[in-house]
Amino acid sequence: MKATLRVLPLGGLGEIGKNMAVVEYEGRIVVIDAGVRFPTAEMHGIDLVLPDFTYLEERRSAIEAVVVTHGHEDHLGGLPWVIRGLGDEGVPVVYGRRLTAAMAKSKLDEHRLPTRVERLEPGDTVAAGPFELELVHVTHSIPDASAVALRTELGTVLFTGDYRFDQTPVDGRPADISRLSRFGDEELLLLCGDSTNADRAGFALSESDVGPRLLEVFSRCRGRIIVTSFASNIHRVQQVIDAAHELDRQVALVGRSMVKNVNIGRELGHIRVPEGMMVEPKHVEEVADERLVIVATGSQGEPLAALRRMASGDHRHVKLHPGDTIVFSATPVPGNERAINDTIDRLFKLGCDVVTARDAPIHTSGHGHREELKLMLNLTRPRYLLPVHGDHKRIRLHAELGEAVGIPPERIFRGDNGIPLEVDANGARFGERVQAGMIFIDGIDIGAPTEAALRDRRALSADGVMVVVATISSQDGETLVDHEIVLRGVPLAEDEAAFTEDVRGAVDESLARAAENDVHEVDLIEKTLHDDLAEFVWRRLRRRPMILPIVVEV
Amino acid sequence: MKATLRVLPLGGLGEIGKNMAVVEYEGRIVVIDAGVRFPTAEMHGIDLVLPDFTYLEERRSAIEAVVVTHGHEDHLGGLPWVIRGLGDEGVPVVYGRRLTAAMAKSKLDEHRLPTRVERLEPGDTVAAGPFELELVHVTHSIPDASAVALRTELGTVLFTGDYRFDQTPVDGRPADISRLSRFGDEELLLLCGDSTNADRAGFALSESDVGPRLLEVFSRCRGRIIVTSFASNIHRVQQVIDAAHELDRQVALVGRSMVKNVNIGRELGHIRVPEGMMVEPKHVEEVADERLVIVATGSQGEPLAALRRMASGDHRHVKLHPGDTIVFSATPVPGNERAINDTIDRLFKLGCDVVTARDAPIHTSGHGHREELKLMLNLTRPRYLLPVHGDHKRIRLHAELGEAVGIPPERIFRGDNGIPLEVDANGARFGERVQAGMIFIDGIDIGAPTEAALRDRRALSADGVMVVVATISSQDGETLVDHEIVLRGVPLAEDEAAFTEDVRGAVDESLARAAENDVHEVDLIEKTLHDDLAEFVWRRLRRRPMILPIVVEV
Repeated sequence: MKATLRVLPLGGLGEIGKNMAVVEYEGRIVVIDAGVRFPTAEMHGIDLVLPDFTYLEERRSAIEAVVVTHGHEDHLGGLPWVIRGLGDEGVPVVYGRRLTAAMAKSKLDEHRLPTRVERLEPGDTVAAGPFELELVHVTHSIPDASAVALRTELGTVLFTGDYRFDQTPVDGRPADISRLSRFGDEELLLLCGDSTNADRAGFALSESDVGPRLLEVFSRCRGRIIVTSFASNIHRVQQVIDAAHELDRQVALVGRSMVKNVNIGRELGHIRVPEGMMVEPKHVEEVADERLVIVATGSQGEPLAALRRMASGDHRHVKLHPGDTIVFSATPVPGNERAINDTIDRLFKLGCDVVTARDAPIHTSGHGHREELKLMLNLTRPRYLLPVHGDHKRIRLHAELGEAVGIPPERIFRGDNGIPLEVDANGARFGERVQAGMIFIDGIDIGAPTEAALRDRRALSADGVMVVVATISSQDGETLVDHEIVLRGVPLAEDEAAFTEDVRGAVDESLARAAENDVHEVDLIEKTLHDDLAEFVWRRLRRRPMILPIVVEV
Repeated sequence: MKATLRVLPLGGLGEIGKNMAVVEYEGRIVVIDAGVRFPTAEMHGIDLVLPDFTYLEERRSAIEAVVVTHGHEDHLGGLPWVIRGLGDEGVPVVYGRRLTAAMAKSKLDEHRLPTRVERLEPGDTVAAGPFELELVHVTHSIPDASAVALRTELGTVLFTGDYRFDQTPVDGRPADISRLSRFGDEELLLLCGDSTNADRAGFALSESDVGPRLLEVFSRCRGRIIVTSFASNIHRVQQVIDAAHELDRQVALVGRSMVKNVNIGRELGHIRVPEGMMVEPKHVEEVADERLVIVATGSQGEPLAALRRMASGDHRHVKLHPGDTIVFSATPVPGNERAINDTIDRLFKLGCDVVTARDAPIHTSGHGHREELKLMLNLTRPRYLLPVHGDHKRIRLHAELGEAVGIPPERIFRGDNGIPLEVDANGARFGERVQAGMIFIDGIDIGAPTEAALRDRRALSADGVMVVVATISSQDGETLVDHEIVLRGVPLAEDEAAFTEDVRGAVDESLARAAENDVHEVDLIEKTLHDDLAEFVWRRLRRRPMILPIVVEV
């Protein structure tokens, strides 16, 4: 009898980002992707958000491999933390195509992790326990993107990864439709498909249509041109370089990740730069305005990125001035609108001109629109469909597209993080929910303790903190010196000295009450003080700062 | 010789919101609007943002009146705080049209301010020192909106207020184009015009075109319909009621401001509700799904508003379920996108359907688009133009429209908050910059102290706080009891007990160093502790929590 295949999404469902899925067969596991999400404003001080991978920690000896579909942070960014969490023996090998493998290796080197990273190219297959793995070439907004097929005795499951069907990609290599259609011919068991643009009609604009539009925009500019885009969108950077070359302008790369990605891209042959075109950032002021294009990070209004620094007038090398045109060859990731608008308005204040994708078709998405999702469904004709990579809205819309192309509704599964889909010879169904959710990267490490820290920071950020130190005698509990009162971040509408004097009075009363009630243990006195002072401050200020009473017995 | 007219914007330039302007002639002042802005996520714990009105505090005896153009928060919301700041004698009277005056009165009553609020209707004029004031009827997304003309010996300045030229408004009263054109005939000196939609082409869709589209959407719904919109958009609520009536559905109003605004609107005759149509929120579950429309607050994803509570499943009266359709008859205010998307995705998760203004033309803006701004310029033909109400981008685009209709560039002024425009018989020019900016409403009061509090909260929110109490002998500086170490919100990758033990060691070293250097004053010891511990913590954690050292001498 054939075993049960389990597909368990740990991230990327009901959200955009931190994509990760576990595929299990005969007790062995292959992990697809290990992505991150960027924190929202409410996650005070959190640097990154990862999928909770407790499920894998409990099964580390079962893991055969991690496969990374492409080099974007929402698929690759969590890898070092996952490997640290699972230990060396937990992840024997990481597979990916050339650029993906290079980016994974560079990340693991930064974290000094010796995990083996193996290149796997489309057409090749590799065994991983009961699975046979194969990558399939697809187009996306980064080179070397791939879908992943996992073949088992029961059947094949195909993860599309992030994809689109660009018929005229910049490198001339459209998605491997022929290979995809053979999955359909051979009766694909399950498709786990990208839902990111399930709400957008038609086909996405081809990446190679963006270049001519950039050239049009550039040719209308008389001063300097500063283009911002995602640093990993190497074909976009290529098109910027081509347009600059056409107009006889030199190009400077500004921003750490822009320089790094273009270097990797040049080494791997994904990007070609004509001789003598590049200029170092520190020399840009020596180039005539009408002979220069700067390619910069910061398309999302990131506070530390090159463009934002330029807009605030504190970039080391580039001082913006009237006559400069800033071209946003990117669209806002939801949630970044305010930061981007702020950046744009600073640019207007400096007298610069700004061109965005709302003004001209100078950006396109790396994710297929609705017609492309339907094409994928019709090519691969899966028995079961599990839409992934999307919030609840997009998951539902993708499921509806599945019905529209003729998949019976009972074979379409609208899942969620932590809910495994179980497929066997008798059919498919959701299994029991397992632990899933977010874990936070907070400074140098991860884990549960930071959730308490986060809660505290949320409280501190709203109303500040009041520290009260009472020094009492260990003999009779008498107060030995004046109570110390320290306020930070507490909104005071009155004189601070007068307020703290009244707090001292409240402390006296609270200590007296504790003594009356025969409360003498330091912990209990502190608890009494906390409760009494919280009430006092609320009545007085209508605010709830964090109250930290410290009783010192001498 | 005629005097100089000064127009000083204190808010609304280089930003969207907190509109306020000072008009000065012969040493007397009239204030136009007193608006607020809503805080951004970085303004931890701040409730509201107001224009800095120090300039008025220094001239309170010169103020003749405050004129409020309409009842929106970004024009009216700051009034109570401005009046409290200026004192009773600072604002002798507030003028506005009927609904505006009613809303101003209700706000001042809440704050127990006895300031006189006078109705001023279009067609009437009133003297205010050297000014003659007149309101002009315009259309906007709230009834009783107006432009304000201030006539002086030197000439007339016209503030458009927020406006659009809706030719078929719901109440049948288009903007008073005839009156506006007479300003042009009589040589208008200065126009201060709304720039909010200077980036949008064409004419805004008429409000009365929204109703039929709402009806279309409603007629396709089989279950309950929940519509969310701005509560002050009384004509929109009217159209929702009309569409519900057409389809024989009852209407429930949910959310405090929705109920309040509709009540005021009914009292003043702006809104008409057919007999027996309304149902109390607590009775909605008794109405059949296909017979009910709920009108709710929360179109911006506000965490405490009715719709968000429904989406989170914790609204007292309304439990959403599959088959319900939620209609967003509003568009996101920039910065609210994430909160709105979160709300929408929760609705999808509940199985509801969602219709937004991207799916059907069920919303229109209250601000005129580019063709309407040009029409205003051509009607009033001002000698000088000062675009207001807009970030730097929109101010520039509005200035360019001024040039496009033939105003000489040297008569168009791209201003900023705090920069007065000075006009006299010889011409117009910018004067010297005065104090302007933001002040924060933080709980119950306003003012400067909260800026320090805000800075502290920002620090606390990022990395938390570490309190260190060292109790030493006043005789010899010897440590008397173990140092107390309290951490809150500090991200720790290690065992807290081990870490605090090491902090105690660092405190010992720091105290020893202070003693060696003959530092004996408590303040100076605390400073030494602060600096040493900050360095210790940074080296150990790569984080910068706020460090609060407290030295108690016994």
